[in-house]
Amino acid sequence: MNVSDTNIEDLDDDLRPLVKGVLNGEQLSLSRLISSIENGDPGYRDAVKVLHSHATGTRTIGITGQPGAGKSTLVDKLVDRLREQDLTVGVIAVDPSSPYSGGSVLGDRVRQTSRSEDRDVFFRSMSARGHVGGLAAATFDVVHAMDAFGKDVILIETVGAGQNEVEIVRAADTVCVVALPGAGDDVQANKAGILEIADVFAVNKADFDGAKSTALELQQMIRIGQDLERSNSGDPVEEPANWVPRVELTVATKDEGVDDLINAFDAHYEHIEKSGELAETRGRRFEQEVRTHLSNELDELGDAVVEAHHDLLTADNDPYTASEELVTPFRRAVEDYLRDD
Amino acid sequence: MNVSDTNIEDLDDDLRPLVKGVLNGEQLSLSRLISSIENGDPGYRDAVKVLHSHATGTRTIGITGQPGAGKSTLVDKLVDRLREQDLTVGVIAVDPSSPYSGGSVLGDRVRQTSRSEDRDVFFRSMSARGHVGGLAAATFDVVHAMDAFGKDVILIETVGAGQNEVEIVRAADTVCVVALPGAGDDVQANKAGILEIADVFAVNKADFDGAKSTALELQQMIRIGQDLERSNSGDPVEEPANWVPRVELTVATKDEGVDDLINAFDAHYEHIEKSGELAETRGRRFEQEVRTHLSNELDELGDAVVEAHHDLLTADNDPYTASEELVTPFRRAVEDYLRDD
Repeated sequence: MNVSDTNIEDLDDDLRPLVKGVLNGEQLSLSRLISSIENGDPGYRDAVKVLHSHATGTRTIGITGQPGAGKSTLVDKLVDRLREQDLTVGVIAVDPSSPYSGGSVLGDRVRQTSRSEDRDVFFRSMSARGHVGGLAAATFDVVHAMDAFGKDVILIETVGAGQNEVEIVRAADTVCVVALPGAGDDVQANKAGILEIADVFAVNKADFDGAKSTALELQQMIRIGQDLERSNSGDPVEEPANWVPRVELTVATKDEGVDDLINAFDAHYEHIEKSGELAETRGRRFEQEVRTHLSNELDELGDAVVEAHHDLLTADNDPYTASEELVTPFRRAVEDYLRDD
Repeated sequence: MNVSDTNIEDLDDDLRPLVKGVLNGEQLSLSRLISSIENGDPGYRDAVKVLHSHATGTRTIGITGQPGAGKSTLVDKLVDRLREQDLTVGVIAVDPSSPYSGGSVLGDRVRQTSRSEDRDVFFRSMSARGHVGGLAAATFDVVHAMDAFGKDVILIETVGAGQNEVEIVRAADTVCVVALPGAGDDVQANKAGILEIADVFAVNKADFDGAKSTALELQQMIRIGQDLERSNSGDPVEEPANWVPRVELTVATKDEGVDDLINAFDAHYEHIEKSGELAETRGRRFEQEVRTHLSNELDELGDAVVEAHHDLLTADNDPYTASEELVTPFRRAVEDYLRDD
């Protein structure tokens, strides 16, 4: 599979043993390698290239939702169930609330889970600090590392607050949006977007008032969304049928509804495997990763050009005029590049 | 002042009357022009260029903090005070919680404020939808529009959740972080970052338990931060003295502590005016705007290149190798460009 030019023996002296360790399933190596990715250590990209060539395409499940929806507890219970099925699990908890340089909320903290002693669960929190290419790129890299390590399932938990987090969770095979009872208004306001990314809804804290009506509202919105799609497609008999997002009631703290939620995930995965959507999703994810990396590299080049042309940043200029001037060499390069094809 | 090549008479037919209206202080034109910015209507950048050339450098105050900290209520009270001083006010409420395409939480909603009838307060919510260059670029553009319109003070309210929101609030002359009583742990965890961006802290809901101890904790952290800075600078007698972030207790719902907060803002502004930091801040903001616009333009070019080279997105490749290949023409162009200088 390894067609990349980067060979494991060519890796940086510090990273080579870590990559070998990860491929041998050594937990400590995985932990250290992820730190290297987060810190942007020299040569980490080559390490990721090698790991990518050993990745098999592990199943990924994204869990997102507003702060306070109970995502962490739910993820813990999901891990328990997956372990009972003898699946090894990786968890990436993405924490965007620490965007300030040097700050860190979850990054250095090991979250206490019921599986802290279980060597077949690997839990990692990631914050925005450190990684040169931002949180999305780092998360993609860690998915490849956990995949190459041999995890059977990877859960990616994010707070659904910003564009970057959506980019991250969207990259998962199955996306679960955790909602709260009585979130009707918010859900209503967000419906276009939520319907767009959710494959499964978990109405968590379902022992609170309004859980059932929230579930009903979601189901109604899903039905309207499906009707719209059908009327837009113009094809009355479509095969294979579209996936209809499932809505499950859960009480994570009491471990209720978690089996149904896992079943919904499995049903979705089976559906996308059969329909060919899985291959499409993976293709989109690859493209998203390339765009993310390219965007980061272009930003570095852009910074170099801004540094070299501080003379444009004068009071008698304006930011758009300055940026248009600075983008000119890039634009010309792209025109040449595309013409040469 | 207008040295930009873009003349008001050259603007798009739809935008020309709006820009003229904004410069004449017509509220409806401002509202429509902001919509054009949000929607990325053809020619909106040229409109912003013209407005920028008429901007005078209005004072901007950024208000940020976690969801639920009471930012909106506090902003309403601040507006009341500023109006009592006969200052005209623009408010931009940046809502990052609606990152999904087509979704909108605050965008179309007119927030009810006590000043809804006051023509000298202009309130605008902005969400991520629509604007081609993202929320940060749109917010910068709207600041220029409100400035050219003639507002005396512009308040920029954001939820402090993601990298982009920090980028936005950092662009303000004075940054106020709204904290909650008992937020000790969070604050502790975030201290490096919060100390970095906050010029003034408002411990809001100060009628709840723990407000005073939270204020004390913040003051302690500020002192430690200042000591560190002094010992790093190696200069025992530094003139002019650094700004020491102020901590104010507020109860926005009861209108308590708002005068002190305004006084703290004024003291900070006076300090940065005298020390020359204001000019530095404005320079940094200009540079930040150029980087943001350039980054958006480069992303568009990057997308075009990815589209044209889908052949690189194959299973035997990896995302880093593909992006390195795609960045090559850009890299060469920058090298040539910088060499030619």
